[in-house]
Amino acid sequence: MVASRRRLRGRPLTPDHFKVAFRLHPGGVALVTADAGDGPVALTASSLASVSASPPLFMFSVSMQSSSTATLRASTTVVVHLLDAATQDLAELGAAPGIDRFRDERSWDRLDTGEPVFPAARAWIRGRVLHRLDAGGSTVIVAEGIESSVGDDHVERYGERDGLVYFNRSWHAVGSHTRLPGH
Amino acid sequence: MVASRRRLRGRPLTPDHFKVAFRLHPGGVALVTADAGDGPVALTASSLASVSASPPLFMFSVSMQSSSTATLRASTTVVVHLLDAATQDLAELGAAPGIDRFRDERSWDRLDTGEPVFPAARAWIRGRVLHRLDAGGSTVIVAEGIESSVGDDHVERYGERDGLVYFNRSWHAVGSHTRLPGH
Repeated sequence: MVASRRRLRGRPLTPDHFKVAFRLHPGGVALVTADAGDGPVALTASSLASVSASPPLFMFSVSMQSSSTATLRASTTVVVHLLDAATQDLAELGAAPGIDRFRDERSWDRLDTGEPVFPAARAWIRGRVLHRLDAGGSTVIVAEGIESSVGDDHVERYGERDGLVYFNRSWHAVGSHTRLPGH
Repeated sequence: MVASRRRLRGRPLTPDHFKVAFRLHPGGVALVTADAGDGPVALTASSLASVSASPPLFMFSVSMQSSSTATLRASTTVVVHLLDAATQDLAELGAAPGIDRFRDERSWDRLDTGEPVFPAARAWIRGRVLHRLDAGGSTVIVAEGIESSVGDDHVERYGERDGLVYFNRSWHAVGSHTRLPGH
């Protein structure tokens, strides 16, 4: 009797309910850098995701409240650094308010093409911005990966290292010790 | 001597290198459902992210290769279910190829507005689609959350439950046992 199926109704969604729902939704951690000509910027994002492998496209969102966002919105290229538990310091660097994230000159370099890069990251990908979408107080950026630090031995080199996750306002490590049974 | 700074160059990014880079990038897990009038669809996505809290906006991407994507692209509303380790079965349901994801009639209901919903999820959010962006072989969807299962006691009820992460082709749990020291 399909007609007897009950119908559910939710509660109106408030910004506070939205925030607590996503506070418990884990996210991988990336450091995004760019330089639109007025100096390098870097910020930590937990929204980075792969969109397509062929062509290689990725997306992330940045809040307009971040001081780095004006530069990211003006840049035609960006670099995303995929962080793991061994580079938690880079995640904290890009998340700390009001500091000069490029003060430690030994921690970063420039690419041939000018973008700032932190070579300690497990992987970095330089991408050309394809789409910028203003949504609420944020900008969604979709970019095509062009160049990266990744080599054929990437999984052999890094597959045993713990991944880095942002969850419930803290950093977490995932690896062989956290694996669940199942498919 | 800034002039002496070395300049780095990467390797041209191939789809295979892109895939291995993201294989080691952890992601939270969501079950996305919709019904554009031709029957309910459900698929698992590890790309869900919050974009903005006020207004409450979220985004995710879906591959055109999924049989559910045509329905998702035609829908004006979607439901995202934020999954935790206690609902790994829903993550597997939406990821398994070639099965009827609605066969177990007891596992799902309809919202008043018609969308399919799996009430066992930690949280579900019904959203109105604001933007659809075709990018490579995928579609990026940005939606505004309207209604949800989230109540004021959400963190008290669920804050101690393990989160669910997809990492290196496996499901992983994060919780108090995986927390790293640091900010």
